[in-house]
Amino acid sequence: MPEAQAALTDARIDCLQYCNWSRKIFSQMREGGLDAVHVTVCYHEDFGQTVANLADWNRLFQDHEALIMPGRLAEDILAARQSNRTAVFFGFQNCSPIEADIGLVEICHQLGVRFMQLSYNNQSLLATGCYEADDPGITRMGRQVIAEMNRVGLVVDMSHSSDRSTLEAIEVSSRPIAITHANPSFWHPALRNKSDTVIKALAESGGMIGFSLYPHHLREGSACTLENFCEMVAKTAERFGIEHIGIGSDLCQDQPDSIVEWMRNGRWTTERDFGEGSADKPGFPEQPSWFRDSRDFPNIAAGLRDVGFDDESVAAVMGNNWLRFFEQSFVSARI
Amino acid sequence: MPEAQAALTDARIDCLQYCNWSRKIFSQMREGGLDAVHVTVCYHEDFGQTVANLADWNRLFQDHEALIMPGRLAEDILAARQSNRTAVFFGFQNCSPIEADIGLVEICHQLGVRFMQLSYNNQSLLATGCYEADDPGITRMGRQVIAEMNRVGLVVDMSHSSDRSTLEAIEVSSRPIAITHANPSFWHPALRNKSDTVIKALAESGGMIGFSLYPHHLREGSACTLENFCEMVAKTAERFGIEHIGIGSDLCQDQPDSIVEWMRNGRWTTERDFGEGSADKPGFPEQPSWFRDSRDFPNIAAGLRDVGFDDESVAAVMGNNWLRFFEQSFVSARI
Repeated sequence: MPEAQAALTDARIDCLQYCNWSRKIFSQMREGGLDAVHVTVCYHEDFGQTVANLADWNRLFQDHEALIMPGRLAEDILAARQSNRTAVFFGFQNCSPIEADIGLVEICHQLGVRFMQLSYNNQSLLATGCYEADDPGITRMGRQVIAEMNRVGLVVDMSHSSDRSTLEAIEVSSRPIAITHANPSFWHPALRNKSDTVIKALAESGGMIGFSLYPHHLREGSACTLENFCEMVAKTAERFGIEHIGIGSDLCQDQPDSIVEWMRNGRWTTERDFGEGSADKPGFPEQPSWFRDSRDFPNIAAGLRDVGFDDESVAAVMGNNWLRFFEQSFVSARI
Repeated sequence: MPEAQAALTDARIDCLQYCNWSRKIFSQMREGGLDAVHVTVCYHEDFGQTVANLADWNRLFQDHEALIMPGRLAEDILAARQSNRTAVFFGFQNCSPIEADIGLVEICHQLGVRFMQLSYNNQSLLATGCYEADDPGITRMGRQVIAEMNRVGLVVDMSHSSDRSTLEAIEVSSRPIAITHANPSFWHPALRNKSDTVIKALAESGGMIGFSLYPHHLREGSACTLENFCEMVAKTAERFGIEHIGIGSDLCQDQPDSIVEWMRNGRWTTERDFGEGSADKPGFPEQPSWFRDSRDFPNIAAGLRDVGFDDESVAAVMGNNWLRFFEQSFVSARI
């Protein structure tokens, strides 16, 4: 086996973070052994505002070049490993950056974006968010945009979308899609978690789900135990196949509570929306003790071993499955 | 009766035009006796592009000040009449100018906008367009935006929206809403025309419908006779009450066919959408012979008399009903 391949048999990938980026956080990614992270670069921003965020990232890559590098294709993960860095892949949690212009799909891809949610919590021009009362499925523009995303190599992410839209996205998309950060409803029936129907259709179409460590997505929230989490992973693997699961921690490290308020409210409402929180608990919930931040990825690997995963299965969940998905999803990428 | 009141017992108002504006067209408005016109200033444009359109209108008001003037409140129609001009009221056929920012509702109102469709043909952030396969009703953001429109005095227009969204808009809105340009489905069952259920709910809530002269909305299209059109008006008055009807001609005078292609396709699709047209008839349809342009409003008044309307009823349909609606809808307007 060539060395390049060997180096990647244990890729460690977190398929969703939105932190208040700093040298400390990038150093902790290295401590936790992360070869790649998918980072959110948009929640509500339009195209121009998103470009400003990307310009900020260009600066971060310069300022922290010993710790991080831009991730565009799967092979960048090997380059990151070989230089002891973490490859950073960009994604949108909303379709707001493409505004009403399908031409911006390819433009965003050219700027390095590799994931786009078709909706955040609300109805978008493309699909329905999980907080809407009703879901009419993928819209007319949505069908056009999915085809364009398939063409350029931009992954459809349905983490915050509701069931019908997600099932239709799986059906309409010619390439496997992702749910980068959510857990199964059978384990914890939060609005943001995913039904068996959705996970089954996702897995059967070659898609991936990344398990979230965000307390609102965990059974018993911040008090969830590592063992309980890992048993959920085992059960999901058993039901839907181990090759379709990974981690998407949804880590929002060092963010002030004003950020979660902005995530929920953007500028779309005059009333205050609490999303997964509530009026008495409006802020970010506390992380579980065994997953404070990127330093604790080894805890998850150990937890998986403890509930019976063998080495190959641990490696699959900790990043090899995402690596394979990246290899398939970005092949036609033009950068 | 004071003279001011007397002067307005026969206001003539067209509640929708989107022409390739010119001195010729403004002169024809005067020839046809139009005291006020609601003009479209946005189909797909975002906020910045819409502001550019408004700046173009500011220039038109300067260049043609003998023929037109800005319309902001109902009383501007009297001022227009007294100075032999036509008052021009602004409206959006889409909610794209407010983007994802509810704060832009009041900003657009401050810039003189008085009508906003919650959607054009497709799903928007607020409501569903009549070309979508399914309609989930008013969205979460839509409910917030309707309340804000009610507050500032911006009229909800559902001309291009589908049934459920329209019925919910009527229910959610604390002020009467408008369908500025459409005809009843009972007369011509085009996708853009309105069901009895919708017109009934609209009328019962104090709303208004403006009859369209756009051939795709007419029975027998361009060949529709004046008599047939006026009989439809009579039947609608009989079914739903004469006080809820007016004219919204949807006149698109002197526009090249590239404009109707843009209306239908904007920048949302890579395939070509023909809307109410078809691949073999992609352009603007020919106007009926008795309504070439604004000069022919007297033909409609005469046609209404011919099918039995008395003078007061003719005046109601030709503009007095819209005048009353404008008086009610813009009272809290701040300009």
